[in-house]
Amino acid sequence: MRYAVLGTGVVGRTIADKVASLGHEVVVGTSDPQATLARTEPDGYGNPPFSDWQAQHADVRLLAFAEAAAFAETMINCTAGSGSLEALRAAGAANLAGKVLIDIANPLDFSQGMPPSLDPVNTDSLGEKIQRSFPDAKVVKTLNTMNAQVMVDPARVPGEHTVFVSGDDAEAKKAVSELLASFGWPAADILDLGDITTARGAEMLMPIWLRLWGALGHGDFNFHIVKAHPDA
Amino acid sequence: MRYAVLGTGVVGRTIADKVASLGHEVVVGTSDPQATLARTEPDGYGNPPFSDWQAQHADVRLLAFAEAAAFAETMINCTAGSGSLEALRAAGAANLAGKVLIDIANPLDFSQGMPPSLDPVNTDSLGEKIQRSFPDAKVVKTLNTMNAQVMVDPARVPGEHTVFVSGDDAEAKKAVSELLASFGWPAADILDLGDITTARGAEMLMPIWLRLWGALGHGDFNFHIVKAHPDA
Repeated sequence: MRYAVLGTGVVGRTIADKVASLGHEVVVGTSDPQATLARTEPDGYGNPPFSDWQAQHADVRLLAFAEAAAFAETMINCTAGSGSLEALRAAGAANLAGKVLIDIANPLDFSQGMPPSLDPVNTDSLGEKIQRSFPDAKVVKTLNTMNAQVMVDPARVPGEHTVFVSGDDAEAKKAVSELLASFGWPAADILDLGDITTARGAEMLMPIWLRLWGALGHGDFNFHIVKAHPDA
Repeated sequence: MRYAVLGTGVVGRTIADKVASLGHEVVVGTSDPQATLARTEPDGYGNPPFSDWQAQHADVRLLAFAEAAAFAETMINCTAGSGSLEALRAAGAANLAGKVLIDIANPLDFSQGMPPSLDPVNTDSLGEKIQRSFPDAKVVKTLNTMNAQVMVDPARVPGEHTVFVSGDDAEAKKAVSELLASFGWPAADILDLGDITTARGAEMLMPIWLRLWGALGHGDFNFHIVKAHPDA
């Protein structure tokens, strides 16, 4: 399968590394590949420049968003939520049409101070905005409720814990569940919340995730939905 | 200890029953006790009228909000979130001052259609609004992230799962944690999120709770925060 990972931050790098390690063809999309590769300083979070990662992943090509999306059969949106729609417009609606678009982004809004709030929130979600903006893409929201290392290595957190899936297209959700299974997610821990409007619930976990990160002092945790009637 | 449970719905009845069963003196507060007791029809959710519950709990007096709050050493807000501030104003700031006020309510807003959204949300919370409105009360947000039966009987959901606590007053949170322990919550499952602003995170779990309720077909579930470094 040919994948395009959109976004060059920690989430994009972690996902691209994992998907490539599973034997898929992977490209990474960014707005300006030359500018991305020319950076030599750590980013605002202290992460090493993308060129360092690229040097260790010579098999993963860095392309402009539109080229990356044209190449791919499935896309994974790992851009910052505030820039996701712009990145996807650059990718081009025609390059998204008919394809599965996995949305991992959270619409964090840093303009109201720390901790960040969400925009949109409550009566809308980034997942829905993307689906409305690109009606021919098959948007599936998932993995946005945990840190990147847990996304691709669920065994990092002991025992059972949950990954949520939201989307309108049942076949797309099935394909995404298979990708999650290949990451190590047991079928029993993949929880289909329903249509893309349920992305509101998944995105609105971010505020308590951030508070838990503060209270626990690390990001190696996850939500588990514990049920009294597991067979119901 | 003398408790006032504010609110006569399912949450209020369930909490009042539990607290009374533990040997505490319990009163229930409502805006107009005579009107509440005069109702003979089920409420909008199909619950039997309060008079049925009162007949089975003759030891629990139904009082006007102010009388209930004046009687109590600790108050538990189980009113509908949209009416909580009005109920607490009726209880009277002087009757709340210096006391622990446990806030279980969720600020559900049905005006935007179903499922309900939240108001306030994102950059504010009901817990904070209550604390700002009654600065001399010691507000502790807890138990709002699960259904009433799980609140008072955590063993109803198997294994470990989490109850969150938010508040500015460390002693008040300690007292609330002791009450939760008496409900059956193991100390390891009581998670202190931090100050009252963390109530935003706890209240913003409601949207995914409602979607999970739909996806699972029942409310006998809870969130468990699974940690990779439990001793950290």
